[in-house]
Amino acid sequence: MEIGFVGLGNMGRGMAVNLIKAGHQVTVYNRSPDKAEALVQQGATAARTVADASRGEVVFTMLADDSAVEDVTLGEGGIVASLAPGATHVSSSTISVALSERLATAHAEAGQRYAAAPVFGRPDAASAAKLFVVAAGASEVLEPLSPLFDAIGQRTFVVSELPHTANLVKLSGNFLIASVIESLGEAVALVGKAGVDRQQYVDILTSTLFAAPAYRTYGGLIARREFEPAGFAARLGLKDVRLALAAAEQLQVPLPLASLLRDRFLTLVATGGGDLDWSAVSSLADRDAGIGSDHSA
Amino acid sequence: MEIGFVGLGNMGRGMAVNLIKAGHQVTVYNRSPDKAEALVQQGATAARTVADASRGEVVFTMLADDSAVEDVTLGEGGIVASLAPGATHVSSSTISVALSERLATAHAEAGQRYAAAPVFGRPDAASAAKLFVVAAGASEVLEPLSPLFDAIGQRTFVVSELPHTANLVKLSGNFLIASVIESLGEAVALVGKAGVDRQQYVDILTSTLFAAPAYRTYGGLIARREFEPAGFAARLGLKDVRLALAAAEQLQVPLPLASLLRDRFLTLVATGGGDLDWSAVSSLADRDAGIGSDHSA
Amino acid sequence: MEIGFVGLGNMGRGMAVNLIKAGHQVTVYNRSPDKAEALVQQGATAARTVADASRGEVVFTMLADDSAVEDVTLGEGGIVASLAPGATHVSSSTISVALSERLATAHAEAGQRYAAAPVFGRPDAASAAKLFVVAAGASEVLEPLSPLFDAIGQRTFVVSELPHTANLVKLSGNFLIASVIESLGEAVALVGKAGVDRQQYVDILTSTLFAAPAYRTYGGLIARREFEPAGFAARLGLKDVRLALAAAEQLQVPLPLASLLRDRFLTLVATGGGDLDWSAVSSLADRDAGIGSDHSA
Amino acid sequence: MEIGFVGLGNMGRGMAVNLIKAGHQVTVYNRSPDKAEALVQQGATAARTVADASRGEVVFTMLADDSAVEDVTLGEGGIVASLAPGATHVSSSTISVALSERLATAHAEAGQRYAAAPVFGRPDAASAAKLFVVAAGASEVLEPLSPLFDAIGQRTFVVSELPHTANLVKLSGNFLIASVIESLGEAVALVGKAGVDRQQYVDILTSTLFAAPAYRTYGGLIARREFEPAGFAARLGLKDVRLALAAAEQLQVPLPLASLLRDRFLTLVATGGGDLDWSAVSSLADRDAGIGSDHSA
Repeated sequence: MEIGFVGLGNMGRGMAVNLIKAGHQVTVYNRSPDKAEALVQQGATAARTVADASRGEVVFTMLADDSAVEDVTLGEGGIVASLAPGATHVSSSTISVALSERLATAHAEAGQRYAAAPVFGRPDAASAAKLFVVAAGASEVLEPLSPLFDAIGQRTFVVSELPHTANLVKLSGNFLIASVIESLGEAVALVGKAGVDRQQYVDILTSTLFAAPAYRTYGGLIARREFEPAGFAARLGLKDVRLALAAAEQLQVPLPLASLLRDRFLTLVATGGGDLDWSAVSSLADRDAGIGSDHSA
Repeated sequence: MEIGFVGLGNMGRGMAVNLIKAGHQVTVYNRSPDKAEALVQQGATAARTVADASRGEVVFTMLADDSAVEDVTLGEGGIVASLAPGATHVSSSTISVALSERLATAHAEAGQRYAAAPVFGRPDAASAAKLFVVAAGASEVLEPLSPLFDAIGQRTFVVSELPHTANLVKLSGNFLIASVIESLGEAVALVGKAGVDRQQYVDILTSTLFAAPAYRTYGGLIARREFEPAGFAARLGLKDVRLALAAAEQLQVPLPLASLLRDRFLTLVATGGGDLDWSAVSSLADRDAGIGSDHSA
Repeated sequence: MEIGFVGLGNMGRGMAVNLIKAGHQVTVYNRSPDKAEALVQQGATAARTVADASRGEVVFTMLADDSAVEDVTLGEGGIVASLAPGATHVSSSTISVALSERLATAHAEAGQRYAAAPVFGRPDAASAAKLFVVAAGASEVLEPLSPLFDAIGQRTFVVSELPHTANLVKLSGNFLIASVIESLGEAVALVGKAGVDRQQYVDILTSTLFAAPAYRTYGGLIARREFEPAGFAARLGLKDVRLALAAAEQLQVPLPLASLLRDRFLTLVATGGGDLDWSAVSSLADRDAGIGSDHSA
Repeated sequence: MEIGFVGLGNMGRGMAVNLIKAGHQVTVYNRSPDKAEALVQQGATAARTVADASRGEVVFTMLADDSAVEDVTLGEGGIVASLAPGATHVSSSTISVALSERLATAHAEAGQRYAAAPVFGRPDAASAAKLFVVAAGASEVLEPLSPLFDAIGQRTFVVSELPHTANLVKLSGNFLIASVIESLGEAVALVGKAGVDRQQYVDILTSTLFAAPAYRTYGGLIARREFEPAGFAARLGLKDVRLALAAAEQLQVPLPLASLLRDRFLTLVATGGGDLDWSAVSSLADRDAGIGSDHSA
């Protein structure tokens, strides 16, 4: 298949490479062109413009936030202006439900197809084609995409015919991870202040009731207070919790735990921690308990 | 070893049986004597009084709450009054940190030994000797208990020389489970109101980042709104969150998420749900979103 | 002075009449024209369009929300398109800080002047010229407005040279009133469940430490559970708390109490109470305590 | 009347003096006897023991906390042991609902009378006989006390026949004041970070919708960040919020705002601010917004 791929950050790069490996013709675009050049050696064609990346049957976008996706899709020379009728835009970015709805409308008006397919997994999973793909869209849109999802992920979940519902599921997943961070932060501060070894405590949890990737990954970072370099920055965590709350307000679903998380992330950002890993939210529990400073025991 | 066992509820019964199976002489006591009689066929000796169950080298208690443990231990004819100097009381109940400290003092003054060894696991794990034992106490007290812990559990974690610290770890674990219930309740209400199938959503979570027993067990109950019969009643959940908060206040560790959980459990209890499973806390997210009633879709 | 007045709802009508009484020539506009006609008898000139109301030295707007103000000001034939260079737009509506910033920019670009002057007070205070005016803008803009503010209110407070700061102060004031409603709701539920007479309790409070208009007005409504007709609807309360939180996020100021209030208002709206008076948020404390139903004792 | 008065702190001293001024014979007791001696010049008789202060028709207690009241009332040589049958103990301290219930039972068993009469007001109001008295008890107990309440306060409110209900009302009042502190702290941090003068902002509030003593007193302290010396220490604020929550849990009334306040006070205490005035809770809003340090601008 002829595929365009826009956005070659830590996640997008691995996804694009795996599409190439699966035998597809992939034209890649990135705002800073060196990232596109780097993929040429792996078999990609470098596009000079978003429009050049939008000539095929499918174009993926994997970008940082609403603003970037909006520019690339709805802006001048963007995907809506360039994509052929009947071709498909697959949005894999973590964006707001509201923007996903706008994209669906814009593509429909242009006679184009649209699916949302955000992913769960960190950059290493993207490289290893081990992502989990959460897809939503009309079944006739999704069906031909199935081999593409198989190329980038270990499993695909179709959750709705409405594309924006996949974005909601993605946001809800990040809310759940943030909940894990907060609950672990509080629990570790509590038992740690009572003299229990933080790492041993996390080991107990992850050997028993909480033997899940989310607890292992974040439990270790929290126990060691290892918040740099950021795998996922706190200011992005704030953004995602805010988007979850905005979608929930639209749906009229109060989420008191998400409200608590929002205030925690906002506090971290306001006090200078926006570039730390989002697990640094746990340091607020230490701080409020009068335990050391934010970055030391 | 000659062992007494006080408290033959769903958990205690399985633990006592496994001690018998491991070859120990076990004298059992329960307030309603028929439960003790039932174990005689499996090799136990039935005691008429707590004192009669306190004649050996070790006596376990596995009771419902502080009040029951206090009566049995500090009351007239209780364990402190009956246990031989040098013998050990192993408290496996989920009790307050403050009571555990009082028990430690009382046993020390009586020349007796004391360890706290609460467990993680449900009744089926107790029967199958698959519990996780969280033990704390002086090392010379814990060492001879090691084969007993092996008889009832699949793994033992020693967390401190101070017995009450094990109780704190147990309470923190229940706080973490309650956090899972609340976060899942909010997330399921959110995506469910957007039309996602609740069970499919939980399946996605537990196939990916949240592939842990706590999420599988409670995710299923929440998706199906299956809150009866109670595996662990909401009013006990309220009690445990309250005890965690009390211990945290003593240690001066603010736990905002635990405060939120306490209000949720209190709301559930105040509106008639105290005897439902504690996963019914999730129904409040549905209710506040105007979704169905508490017990239906 | 020649003054335009756009928006003749419960608040705007009283304000416009008081400007007429102070001797100004007032041209009034309202989307439903009958409200404008009604003021002609009191000496106003009725305008057919927003543009017709924007021919004088000053034009006031007093509208329901951001969307209405945006239409009237930035839309086709709106105030920015119609107002003479050097003339002033006074925005008295409760709008977002972000929109107020946009209006300031748009008017500056058009060579026009802009001030924000939201008010505190209910419709009866507007009729009686007893409002409190919170004004912000450049001092040369505000100075000539001073007699106009005196005509509509009992006192004017100038809080900043930046117009949007007045909007922030107004939003913060509504946050404080909502805090009063929530705290009274919880306190009344508590003592009421213990058998204290609700009205007597409120009388005690307002005779002692809380002898303030906010407590008298809302205390009475809460004690009597008198939530209809709405003086200020719950969905508008939700909107204002949301705008306060949005402004606070922009300024990086976490407001945990505002987050709690947002969830309370959202719960009330989601469960069908959006058209009740915003004091109905207090009914959630009753509901969660298992006291009566939302709308009865 | 012959009256005993136990507890001559900042509040009790003024109350005792006003009883003397009203013509009663007052025997005073304080743990540190110099405070009792000081009142002899004003016409009091100094008692050597609590028992000596309990020989009259009525004995007041005005002490710091549950523990002090429990010692003096139920301890050896205490009021229950010393008071004549038919004589009355008036408890004016801010104590728990649970202790008030125990005192009622103990006095009833001893054939004595008991009333609760906590007060609102600071030490200057106590000196000036301007307290507000919240009284509860059987009407035949309260009636003869009426002139005594008139001697110490400007107004008396009888709220229930059950003494402990007055304690609940007092705790709810302190909860409401703490709510004012928190809401003002958040609002002042918000507008202050936007450049509004903190003191001017408080002046606006207290000239308009919030013209009440609680807002004037605490608004000024918050605007000036004047948290020393403590009029009422933060650790006492924490205690009172905790007692309100404990009473509410007993009555099954969830109080989410009180839970938030508890965490705020606990944070302040845990980070070293327990001896500051309780209005220092407002400094946490500044801190979380990255404004200055806790104790400076």
